[in-house]
Amino acid sequence: MPSHPIRRHDPAVTSFASDNYAGVHPEILAAIELANGGHQVAYGDDVYTEALQEIFQAHFGEQARTWPVFNGTAANVVSLRAMCAPWEAVICAESAHINTDEGGAPEVVAGLKMLPVATPDGKLTPALIDRQAWGFGDVHRAQPRVVSLSNATELGTLYTVDEIKAVCAHAHELGLLVHLDGARITNAAAALDVPLRALTTDAGVDVLSFGGTKIGLLLGEAVVVLNPAAARGLPYLRKTSMQLASKMRFVSVQFEALLAGDLWLRNARQANAMASRLAAAVQDIDGVEITRPVQANAVFARLPAAAADRLRERFRFYTWNADLGEVRWMCAFDLTEADVDAFAAAIAAELG
Amino acid sequence: MPSHPIRRHDPAVTSFASDNYAGVHPEILAAIELANGGHQVAYGDDVYTEALQEIFQAHFGEQARTWPVFNGTAANVVSLRAMCAPWEAVICAESAHINTDEGGAPEVVAGLKMLPVATPDGKLTPALIDRQAWGFGDVHRAQPRVVSLSNATELGTLYTVDEIKAVCAHAHELGLLVHLDGARITNAAAALDVPLRALTTDAGVDVLSFGGTKIGLLLGEAVVVLNPAAARGLPYLRKTSMQLASKMRFVSVQFEALLAGDLWLRNARQANAMASRLAAAVQDIDGVEITRPVQANAVFARLPAAAADRLRERFRFYTWNADLGEVRWMCAFDLTEADVDAFAAAIAAELG
Amino acid sequence: MPSHPIRRHDPAVTSFASDNYAGVHPEILAAIELANGGHQVAYGDDVYTEALQEIFQAHFGEQARTWPVFNGTAANVVSLRAMCAPWEAVICAESAHINTDEGGAPEVVAGLKMLPVATPDGKLTPALIDRQAWGFGDVHRAQPRVVSLSNATELGTLYTVDEIKAVCAHAHELGLLVHLDGARITNAAAALDVPLRALTTDAGVDVLSFGGTKIGLLLGEAVVVLNPAAARGLPYLRKTSMQLASKMRFVSVQFEALLAGDLWLRNARQANAMASRLAAAVQDIDGVEITRPVQANAVFARLPAAAADRLRERFRFYTWNADLGEVRWMCAFDLTEADVDAFAAAIAAELG
Amino acid sequence: MPSHPIRRHDPAVTSFASDNYAGVHPEILAAIELANGGHQVAYGDDVYTEALQEIFQAHFGEQARTWPVFNGTAANVVSLRAMCAPWEAVICAESAHINTDEGGAPEVVAGLKMLPVATPDGKLTPALIDRQAWGFGDVHRAQPRVVSLSNATELGTLYTVDEIKAVCAHAHELGLLVHLDGARITNAAAALDVPLRALTTDAGVDVLSFGGTKIGLLLGEAVVVLNPAAARGLPYLRKTSMQLASKMRFVSVQFEALLAGDLWLRNARQANAMASRLAAAVQDIDGVEITRPVQANAVFARLPAAAADRLRERFRFYTWNADLGEVRWMCAFDLTEADVDAFAAAIAAELG
Repeated sequence: MPSHPIRRHDPAVTSFASDNYAGVHPEILAAIELANGGHQVAYGDDVYTEALQEIFQAHFGEQARTWPVFNGTAANVVSLRAMCAPWEAVICAESAHINTDEGGAPEVVAGLKMLPVATPDGKLTPALIDRQAWGFGDVHRAQPRVVSLSNATELGTLYTVDEIKAVCAHAHELGLLVHLDGARITNAAAALDVPLRALTTDAGVDVLSFGGTKIGLLLGEAVVVLNPAAARGLPYLRKTSMQLASKMRFVSVQFEALLAGDLWLRNARQANAMASRLAAAVQDIDGVEITRPVQANAVFARLPAAAADRLRERFRFYTWNADLGEVRWMCAFDLTEADVDAFAAAIAAELG
Repeated sequence: MPSHPIRRHDPAVTSFASDNYAGVHPEILAAIELANGGHQVAYGDDVYTEALQEIFQAHFGEQARTWPVFNGTAANVVSLRAMCAPWEAVICAESAHINTDEGGAPEVVAGLKMLPVATPDGKLTPALIDRQAWGFGDVHRAQPRVVSLSNATELGTLYTVDEIKAVCAHAHELGLLVHLDGARITNAAAALDVPLRALTTDAGVDVLSFGGTKIGLLLGEAVVVLNPAAARGLPYLRKTSMQLASKMRFVSVQFEALLAGDLWLRNARQANAMASRLAAAVQDIDGVEITRPVQANAVFARLPAAAADRLRERFRFYTWNADLGEVRWMCAFDLTEADVDAFAAAIAAELG
Repeated sequence: MPSHPIRRHDPAVTSFASDNYAGVHPEILAAIELANGGHQVAYGDDVYTEALQEIFQAHFGEQARTWPVFNGTAANVVSLRAMCAPWEAVICAESAHINTDEGGAPEVVAGLKMLPVATPDGKLTPALIDRQAWGFGDVHRAQPRVVSLSNATELGTLYTVDEIKAVCAHAHELGLLVHLDGARITNAAAALDVPLRALTTDAGVDVLSFGGTKIGLLLGEAVVVLNPAAARGLPYLRKTSMQLASKMRFVSVQFEALLAGDLWLRNARQANAMASRLAAAVQDIDGVEITRPVQANAVFARLPAAAADRLRERFRFYTWNADLGEVRWMCAFDLTEADVDAFAAAIAAELG
Repeated sequence: MPSHPIRRHDPAVTSFASDNYAGVHPEILAAIELANGGHQVAYGDDVYTEALQEIFQAHFGEQARTWPVFNGTAANVVSLRAMCAPWEAVICAESAHINTDEGGAPEVVAGLKMLPVATPDGKLTPALIDRQAWGFGDVHRAQPRVVSLSNATELGTLYTVDEIKAVCAHAHELGLLVHLDGARITNAAAALDVPLRALTTDAGVDVLSFGGTKIGLLLGEAVVVLNPAAARGLPYLRKTSMQLASKMRFVSVQFEALLAGDLWLRNARQANAMASRLAAAVQDIDGVEITRPVQANAVFARLPAAAADRLRERFRFYTWNADLGEVRWMCAFDLTEADVDAFAAAIAAELG
């Protein structure tokens, strides 16, 4: 116990706000404890980080090389920086997290220009990529170098294996590389019922930002270089990007607990199932309109603003588009059927 | 328990390599567990991060404002970036961590020029500062803006309260701000037997990088703005510097466990005491020469290279200066008297 | 004469490609000669740069402060950097030069994120600005700080005085600053028959990139700070942006020759008149469709690709949109009626 | 003539302050006039820029590729950026212009860390390089990649051909590249009476910043890539570094006038001869002590501060080291024997 009393939060309260509101899965916490005690070499030369390489290789192929970092912003920025020369640019969906939610970090710390494309569903296609994939060799144009996808997307939609393949094939034909923001890649793989590598290595993705935090880690994301020719300077870029953990064993062991067995899959299935359950429970309620396909762990819906506000007094969630009255209900790995049912009942009661 | 067996390291092995080789203090780990469960608002709007402000204010004064980040590189770079306009520069000791050990991060991600000064003992003085504090208003010279100190220094030496005051007074007279790299500020305060604020707020320091990791956290450092007029843009700089933890409660609660009671002091005293004990035990051994004052938790010594190499087969530590045969023995908070005595005995045996 | 023979280009050839294809106006060259001889203080402490301040103040008001730089990319980047903190962003038309034609320089050297808005005619309006002017105080969003307009736009269109005023008023209400890319501000003022300050200072513009090169200088653009509170660090930003001319007298004297009398106006009127003349001459030719309003010195037109290609054998000009068969005919200050008539006749002959 | 009267400076006044105080050599101005008239393709696709490649190749070898830029800061920063990955660093003399006089531009716009070495005379040697050439592969250390020399140095001293060769051989053995800041490379070649390539290409230099402005151009420096394997991305780096001149013909033709014949050599010899003449004239004056070898076009001397101040009322020059009473007398290409003799006489009169 801490020697000084710490006032604890109420652990009974859950939410539909973000998978980042959830805590640490107990198996992950147990792994952290296991890695504690005694001394281990700092900065990644410990036994857990050593094991990490094999664990990721089991999922992503023997050529894969993995670099743990602290958060998702960093996984994306370090990935892109390793793929781009300083004058090169990144084609992405206008709604991509790297374009809208990193506070401008790719530009500010890495000097990377985004070349955004408006999309109906957060997904790029070969035709959409072509809207920005031009001007090669023209010094007046920031040189397109990377196509960056998110799967699941920020809109809760999924790329299928074939869609990823088509994008990668097109990008590679144009001489472009493919980055995948996999903050929720586990949700995608679970939902599509395919191995992680089917959506990444085998589909042609060059570099992956693998998301750990949202799926149960205390903290930890990873740059996974799937195509060794697609990235350079990772050790130096991780360090200069302020992402080199000194006690790295505690980051690495979490990934081991997540990926060596099936914890990632159990957690992702649970999150996805709760989104499906929620959608099913509310889709017939008058006044609720589900606005986007529910394919992973998010439900987007439209409901009267007053009702949304009243619901928020008991359950936190975010407005997605105030003009449209659209909200986002995100299901974390730790939500239970009871949590969902209680929320659905509250929605029904508000709108009944 | 993790569902998949994880091969554990040997927790009986300790070292004299780095305070980063140590693990997590049990009270810190207990605090992390306490903060787990249920949902908490992400990105710092949780109850533990809220409490953090008061806890740091108790140590550093009511005007202090604290921004947890992931690691020491980040604490330094975010601090300096918040203090400097893009064309401003940082006066520091040539041996300062920001100059020698961040892989160039201040330059690479923040565009900050270092203005290094050679020092005998890692410590700046008013006279040494003057060697770089010139050229104000001259566009051809990167404009000096910040004096950055480390306490304890990278050479294991300490600034006294009066020395910090003298440096701050001089810097302020010149229109410069003072940053303190406090990766080991707890060791400094414990060794000098003064409160943390005596070495910082009360001495005139404007912004502090407070070190948590080396003194027992799993991970966590903090930018502590002591003079609100000295820094700007912290929320945005932390985000764009890729240092905004989504599940921040788990970083913040560690600081609470460290600083709300006296854990920081117990750990620092232990580390310092082990360095003193080691120095005392080896100083009379023929062939060992202690090369620098042992003031905090580091011992620098010269011994024959062959002996050092043989010792390393059992106890890890780093060579500091190969040309001089100088090594560094760093004492972490978790070393015991038995650890030190065993090491000292081994040294004596090698050189006996 | 150069001591070594230099093979000269054919000075009889003109084009409709770009105002950058033109050379130096004879009065500008004469001014350069006048500034030659003897020694003048370098880096801007010369008598011509001193005079420059007054000359720009006569056009833009007594509060104006002018900083010559080398080219238009620099005028824009230095302006924006002086207006933005490192985490702040710039709202602009998708078609803006800073977004499409600087090779990514604002991002690469200044870390500035662009927040582009699709426009029908290259012009922002209060409503279009609102599409990106949100998220203030949200660390996840790059903070909007500047609205950047171009006048004339990249599409040859003009903002009227009232349109600029409306944009500035709206921006200021939102706490945003206004930058104006005035690579062709002289063409705009001449076309609208208003003083330069009516479109800038008096309309509420905070910082202006004043374009000299396209209107007859050998080389030279200027950052003109119209609102002293809107920009900081200019001397240092110009230097670190590699824009401080050592023999600055030769840049400054060109501006004096351009702006102390009416050379800017004569040149701009001539360029604009040639565009009008060209539009009038071709608008009734079958197979030529003028695609955008001809308001300054550019004519955009659609004509059969084969005809365009044959015309290019004698007259250089650029394809604007290959998919639409749209070309751009840009009229430089040095085109004559004979040049335009010859080109129009050639177009007529090709399509006759 | 400019249509508006311009108040001219006094062309009879010269100085010993800087070679940047001089104007444009008449042959250079004639070349600019020759390149004027009609239209030429912008951004470097003109006949003069085309000719430039051959002209530089005649001096530096057929493999040389030349990129004109605006000023010396840019020539250095673009060169280094093309040679370094974003995490790589530059070993240079503490007194190097890139370290002391670019306002921090290499750090601010290119994120380059300088690894400075104190030198007695501004010159690096293999042994001095070794003081910073270490830590290869260590992520905590900014990775040394380039050794940057200046010839002539900022202290007026010269590297001989053999000294450059020794430095290059040593650097290459260590896997480092060599950059030469040749702001005064013409003075060096003239003084040593060797071709330009003897001090550069043939000695092993990889990339050269060739200085034009100080030796008689209106404006213009060039990045000359001597070893094509040593630099990448030049077209894009020049553009994003805001160094792409739109009317490039006027920059390129100046280099043609300078280098196609012997103008560079005549100007450099004149400047050097004036420094020698000045040194000879003052060396025996009581109260004047020449403090450094006079090898190119600079004379460093110590004289009483009061005398220096009185002299400055008629002849501008800079204090180099106020503590030592050391001044710098820099001789531009346009100084005459009469200028020097008048200055020497004034010195003698002051101290007589």
